[in-house]
Amino acid sequence: MSDAHQKNRQWRVAAPPDGRLTEGNFTWAESEVPEIRPDTAIVRNLWFSFDPTQILAMGVPAEQGGVPVGGVMHTIAVSQVIDSQIPALRPGDIVHGQSYWEDYSRIEEHGYFETTRVPPGVPPNLALGTLGVTGMVAYFGMTEVARPQPGETCVVTAAAGGVGSIAAQIGRIKGLRVIGIAGGREKCDWLRKEARIAEAIDHRTEDVAARLDALCPDGIDIFFDNVGGPVLDLGLDRIRTHGRVVLCGITSWYLLKDRPPGPTRYPNLIMKNARMEGLLGKDYQDRFPEAAPVLLGWLRSGELTSKEDVAVGLENAPRTLVRMYESANIGKQLLKVADPDP
Amino acid sequence: MSDAHQKNRQWRVAAPPDGRLTEGNFTWAESEVPEIRPDTAIVRNLWFSFDPTQILAMGVPAEQGGVPVGGVMHTIAVSQVIDSQIPALRPGDIVHGQSYWEDYSRIEEHGYFETTRVPPGVPPNLALGTLGVTGMVAYFGMTEVARPQPGETCVVTAAAGGVGSIAAQIGRIKGLRVIGIAGGREKCDWLRKEARIAEAIDHRTEDVAARLDALCPDGIDIFFDNVGGPVLDLGLDRIRTHGRVVLCGITSWYLLKDRPPGPTRYPNLIMKNARMEGLLGKDYQDRFPEAAPVLLGWLRSGELTSKEDVAVGLENAPRTLVRMYESANIGKQLLKVADPDP
Repeated sequence: MSDAHQKNRQWRVAAPPDGRLTEGNFTWAESEVPEIRPDTAIVRNLWFSFDPTQILAMGVPAEQGGVPVGGVMHTIAVSQVIDSQIPALRPGDIVHGQSYWEDYSRIEEHGYFETTRVPPGVPPNLALGTLGVTGMVAYFGMTEVARPQPGETCVVTAAAGGVGSIAAQIGRIKGLRVIGIAGGREKCDWLRKEARIAEAIDHRTEDVAARLDALCPDGIDIFFDNVGGPVLDLGLDRIRTHGRVVLCGITSWYLLKDRPPGPTRYPNLIMKNARMEGLLGKDYQDRFPEAAPVLLGWLRSGELTSKEDVAVGLENAPRTLVRMYESANIGKQLLKVADPDP
Repeated sequence: MSDAHQKNRQWRVAAPPDGRLTEGNFTWAESEVPEIRPDTAIVRNLWFSFDPTQILAMGVPAEQGGVPVGGVMHTIAVSQVIDSQIPALRPGDIVHGQSYWEDYSRIEEHGYFETTRVPPGVPPNLALGTLGVTGMVAYFGMTEVARPQPGETCVVTAAAGGVGSIAAQIGRIKGLRVIGIAGGREKCDWLRKEARIAEAIDHRTEDVAARLDALCPDGIDIFFDNVGGPVLDLGLDRIRTHGRVVLCGITSWYLLKDRPPGPTRYPNLIMKNARMEGLLGKDYQDRFPEAAPVLLGWLRSGELTSKEDVAVGLENAPRTLVRMYESANIGKQLLKVADPDP
């Protein structure tokens, strides 16, 4: 507890989003630095990850894994241990795991994501992005759920987003012809030039259905979906025999008050003997150590480019979540809160 | 062409069903017995299978695999060869394959379902039911798509129908705790006493959601769905981690003018790392010879009971399809048209 900063600045949930997320859904607060308890550690938060599932958790009771109104907002973070009653963690350690939108947090070893030490030499942006849950969802979603065969046609939605930007490149590395759907010229340029996938469709200015027909005249083998809603039906309409729809997220849901409409074209799963399968990163947590060296190898060889969109300062956490919610980010959305102590 | 009956009685599609199937969707006609052409055979139809996909084909252009208005209705049939210019087929042979609602048909060897000889000793009802496409869909849907693990909980919809009555029993044979959903006491009694599955829910008189909650307090591992619509959402709501939804049919669709609503609870596929996969019998056609002896073995040992609902007479074909459409049948719906020549 060698820190002079005795106040603990926090963002608490003021109200669940009512059809639209705004900065007004959060309240700024100050409290004391939490006191340590048995089997916990006190950490100073350094970097925050921004993930669409955070929005779904707002206003949901804690028993259901959510953040009730008045609670400090959850996040996956990279943090530095200040004090520890967890045997595996020592002051100074840099850790990755479940934390909160505040300067200092009391964390447990076994939260929604187990708190693990960040390996030496892995910077926080990679620990939260390509080597974090985001990269793992992209990796296992593409390799284990989609099971790609070289030469197949793969369409990725939200292809310039956190998961999409990695999944699209893993598809390309695995020999797929990858077509990314993204919003705006900058994102599509990034997909073509930096992610080096076959083609990009700008859903803000182009007719996505017509472009898919032109680019996929024989249909789609793998539809890697982060969006849901109408674009999922466009994918199901074009799915090939033995095609696979990977469900990684439903960003279109976050814009709605109610549940998203179901995919009306799901009968095509019967007609095409096709499969639609979802995944959460948590489910593959035991296998992260298997994927990390593969992803790191691709990063080092240059086959894989890690793209992050980095905001700065705890005060900007709500604004940064709204930025991701509005799909303004290119690549993984992160927020840098503080530098570690040396 | 040793047949005295020179007229060929037929049922033609008068109009596609407009929100509801009735006998008025067909017209009775008489024409000549078709003449043989190269690479075809003339058959006398003996037994017809009734399958929900037939309804979807009505009024659809022939290029799309349908039966246009004015065309003779399609069916899978057991027939006897009268004349043949197909080397593998000889007069007198009993064959299984694509045919038509008429006394005599000109068939091809390679239709939607390849025409194959019915093995000696296999009666027509089994050839079209448990050992036909219906049984194959149940078998491969349960063994290959659902991949059951002993002790898992499995819910089958339309469990007293053609596919469902076999799938539910295969689930039981594979060590699953099978709960069938069916309409009416007679069907539920059959499921408990003859199919010998763990439990049956009567959707006509019981609250299906409440009964599923009571019978599956830990959720559903395998949801084998022949119905679609609201009951599919009840299944998705209760799907367990790594659960599987097998899509075999969408009978609720046939009651609608438009496409069925999509399953709004599909986000659970993400939350539960679950899989929803469809199948058509056609896709497993190459593997029918592998499944047939297994099914026959279960039939002979008494582990599997074959249930058929048999109507009689070509004149009753439309009425029999309406019967299946209204879910009045228990087990596989068949129609006997004629006896074979000795």
